[in-house]
Amino acid sequence: MKTQSFWHWGFEEDFPDAPARQALASMAGALVASLGALREAPLPKIDDVKLRAPRIDARGTTERDRIMHAGGKGYRDIVRAFRRDFPTAPDVVLHPKDDEEIFAAFELCKREGAVMVPFGGGTSVVGGVGYDGERPVVCVDLGERKRLLDVDGTSRLVRIEAGATGPELEAALAEHGLSLRFYPQSFERSTLGGWIATRAGGHFATGYTHIDDLVASLRMLAPAGVFETKTFPSSGAGPEPNRLVLGSEGVLGVVTEATLRAFARPIHRASATVFFERLERAVDGARAIAQSGLLPSNCRLLDLVEARMSGVSDGRCALLVGFESADHDVVEPMERALKLAVRAGGDAEAPRYRRGERRGSETGGTETWRASFLRGPYLQSALVPFGVMVDTFETACTWSRFADLDRDVRSALSSAMSPWGGGLVAMRFSHVYADGPAPYYTFGCRADLGKEIAQHEAIKRAVSDAISRAGGTITHHHAVGRIHEPWYARERPQPFEAVLRAGKHALDPAGILNPGVLLSER
Amino acid sequence: MKTQSFWHWGFEEDFPDAPARQALASMAGALVASLGALREAPLPKIDDVKLRAPRIDARGTTERDRIMHAGGKGYRDIVRAFRRDFPTAPDVVLHPKDDEEIFAAFELCKREGAVMVPFGGGTSVVGGVGYDGERPVVCVDLGERKRLLDVDGTSRLVRIEAGATGPELEAALAEHGLSLRFYPQSFERSTLGGWIATRAGGHFATGYTHIDDLVASLRMLAPAGVFETKTFPSSGAGPEPNRLVLGSEGVLGVVTEATLRAFARPIHRASATVFFERLERAVDGARAIAQSGLLPSNCRLLDLVEARMSGVSDGRCALLVGFESADHDVVEPMERALKLAVRAGGDAEAPRYRRGERRGSETGGTETWRASFLRGPYLQSALVPFGVMVDTFETACTWSRFADLDRDVRSALSSAMSPWGGGLVAMRFSHVYADGPAPYYTFGCRADLGKEIAQHEAIKRAVSDAISRAGGTITHHHAVGRIHEPWYARERPQPFEAVLRAGKHALDPAGILNPGVLLSER
Repeated sequence: MKTQSFWHWGFEEDFPDAPARQALASMAGALVASLGALREAPLPKIDDVKLRAPRIDARGTTERDRIMHAGGKGYRDIVRAFRRDFPTAPDVVLHPKDDEEIFAAFELCKREGAVMVPFGGGTSVVGGVGYDGERPVVCVDLGERKRLLDVDGTSRLVRIEAGATGPELEAALAEHGLSLRFYPQSFERSTLGGWIATRAGGHFATGYTHIDDLVASLRMLAPAGVFETKTFPSSGAGPEPNRLVLGSEGVLGVVTEATLRAFARPIHRASATVFFERLERAVDGARAIAQSGLLPSNCRLLDLVEARMSGVSDGRCALLVGFESADHDVVEPMERALKLAVRAGGDAEAPRYRRGERRGSETGGTETWRASFLRGPYLQSALVPFGVMVDTFETACTWSRFADLDRDVRSALSSAMSPWGGGLVAMRFSHVYADGPAPYYTFGCRADLGKEIAQHEAIKRAVSDAISRAGGTITHHHAVGRIHEPWYARERPQPFEAVLRAGKHALDPAGILNPGVLLSER
Repeated sequence: MKTQSFWHWGFEEDFPDAPARQALASMAGALVASLGALREAPLPKIDDVKLRAPRIDARGTTERDRIMHAGGKGYRDIVRAFRRDFPTAPDVVLHPKDDEEIFAAFELCKREGAVMVPFGGGTSVVGGVGYDGERPVVCVDLGERKRLLDVDGTSRLVRIEAGATGPELEAALAEHGLSLRFYPQSFERSTLGGWIATRAGGHFATGYTHIDDLVASLRMLAPAGVFETKTFPSSGAGPEPNRLVLGSEGVLGVVTEATLRAFARPIHRASATVFFERLERAVDGARAIAQSGLLPSNCRLLDLVEARMSGVSDGRCALLVGFESADHDVVEPMERALKLAVRAGGDAEAPRYRRGERRGSETGGTETWRASFLRGPYLQSALVPFGVMVDTFETACTWSRFADLDRDVRSALSSAMSPWGGGLVAMRFSHVYADGPAPYYTFGCRADLGKEIAQHEAIKRAVSDAISRAGGTITHHHAVGRIHEPWYARERPQPFEAVLRAGKHALDPAGILNPGVLLSER
């Protein structure tokens, strides 16, 4: 059992050691000249943290539990935690074992005028957990509820409690020869309930990209009662009730379980990397594949900087293409996809195949990229003590809007980073659709020591404005939380806000649940 | 220009002529012994219809317009129309050309205490149009709004007004080399707005089966304002706003336009029929294909009776399998699908291929079946004057529940038809998913002359109860309307009803829109 860190992303055991951190800082310095000389500030210890006294009776809640549930793992959370500052630490942390304890928590909040923050893996990067208002806070951690409840092998459906993390869920399914094939970057820590609440994006780069499509039914407890949908492969009866809960980010209720569409474990795989001199041509290649109907499991474009940082290519853009199947050979679709990419101007390496092999995973550029992908958030944390800001943001837009959006976002980012000597920008496509890509940006620059939060707010504001103006969504899979709320408020139809507020009032009449997330307080 | 019938399904020109109707009656008599001798009653004339006087000022609305907008085209509607009985004829019919006229209609309804029934093609089979309460009725026909507004060829997105019928929409898209690939049985008459309001089911038997997945954004006018979503290929920002409108059946507003995900027109096709002695084995074959990830465009199982009635097979069940692509050859997936079907016990005919051909459509069993499919509703109407009741209903359930559901539904149907000497039952799968099929039933029996409505209600109640008890949804793609409302009310989570009612109140505070549909009046 590894120990989750109280300040940095992920597990203490997986944090880079001192020499690795120095090497990382040197690499960052080489990539971004303006960083100058980098020295690591001392790392925080949990014993140095001082929390304010609980505002309500908190017997049974430890200081450590309050610290561990103080917020998510976005850049601002990590900076504050690094400073031993936990302004959003909850007063009480509960670990309910059953429905009764959750309903009792609703009552407690009502009685105490407290808010409830439903908590899964605590990996939000948008301020989705961590209430910053005046009311006392009761955090409800679903981690005790993670049992596999039912397996219907014939229909490939599994019913599982929402507190299961990625590895817990996959381990439970593996015993039945199944897999959810859902690997968000937060996989190790995030939970099924969190995926549902935030409409997380997963493994498949095309087709069924979000958890939305994998949920056959779900169960949510609200102060007004149990919101439990029935399990159908599909239905046309009224507005889809699951879709109200998917993306509700804890403001309508607490998701306790779901029935999921699982997959047989793939035994046929193909992967290949296609290199492009110019981004425009790589975009054309990605589009051709996205519109071909081939539905590759992987179709991730990396721009020059992204390809270099992840070690996939030194000097060219890359398109990582992968297919997988539990049923049939994937040679023919891979060959066709590569033909389309080459026709767009790409230089394709020979594809690697695994045919009918029960073990093994992706290879080549894809594997290199994936290792880097899962490592990314650790590096973001490790650079904070060096005074380096690294963060990511993402969107989705139509193919016809992408070139302008990319130009505008890069320009806004450069301007926003210029007061601190400029910085680095990298872009990839996390997912692609027939009608457009989901561009994912990484940036890095010198942090304004002591004023990192304001600096981050300024940069985030600039890029979010640019995305909105260029016709992108404020989030493809990072969710809204409190950080994206102002842009989300402009993105959604105003009458939809009225429906959401009316719906929230119907389910949560006392306004207990996660105030400020999705819907501004007013 | 063909003329729509005021009483039977579809166009007058396409109604079977007298000899064809006699032949149809003979065939029905041969299939269902209890029908006895069949004589056709005289067909109604529109001049014989007498409507009650309009309850509000109806200048500008003709009698014919009131008759043509009196309801949908379900069995009960056709029986009533055949009797020259139009109890739900609206008082006023409007054909708004722009938003202003729709908002004016909201005001008119408010002023007059009237209800508004949004009207597309008028093909509802569930009482979705045709208000049966006490208030005056203003019917708003969107048929004047059917322009193609915008084509983004790069992103394959088309923006089109909601009044376009299937043929109008396809004709507009064809000019740009695109197709929506969406062919509900009502294709000739139903409209985009109706598809969206009712979550219609389309052409693809697997994957993106409902209109839901083809809608990138939409626009709906509600008394509270304009509900207009933005066009993104995907977004994770809050609960999906399009999904509130999809399936809202006219109770939240009037859909005026949508941006749709179109497809390049397929040039590669494959189709084949696999025959099975036993239904259970055919189900296994359909399931294997549905779970293979091959995503055929067609995977329609026909039971013995269905296969015989549609002329596909005389004595065996049939599985119609088809693939299509605008990009690549579909030989390999077809071969694999047939292998899976044969492994399940099927006898596969040689597949037919069209490779890279711009013209032509499906062939063989699929073509035979499709001709029969589009003809079906005409035959239902044509049998009404002979005193024969034919109707269809549908559901979706998990694979593990299907055998019991099928047994229970057939048993309920037989019992329900027994007072009239029993009848005929046929079943097909209209769509299949990895987690379950969408079974579609056709039944026929002697009508209880003069009491057809009560008889139909009794049969419908029996099969709907059986479906609900066996774990099926009350509708896969026929929608809820007024007929399915009692079962829908039990199917949806009770807190979701509270949200729907609160949302409706927010958008339509005066309760003008389509009362009794989706939500019972109380």
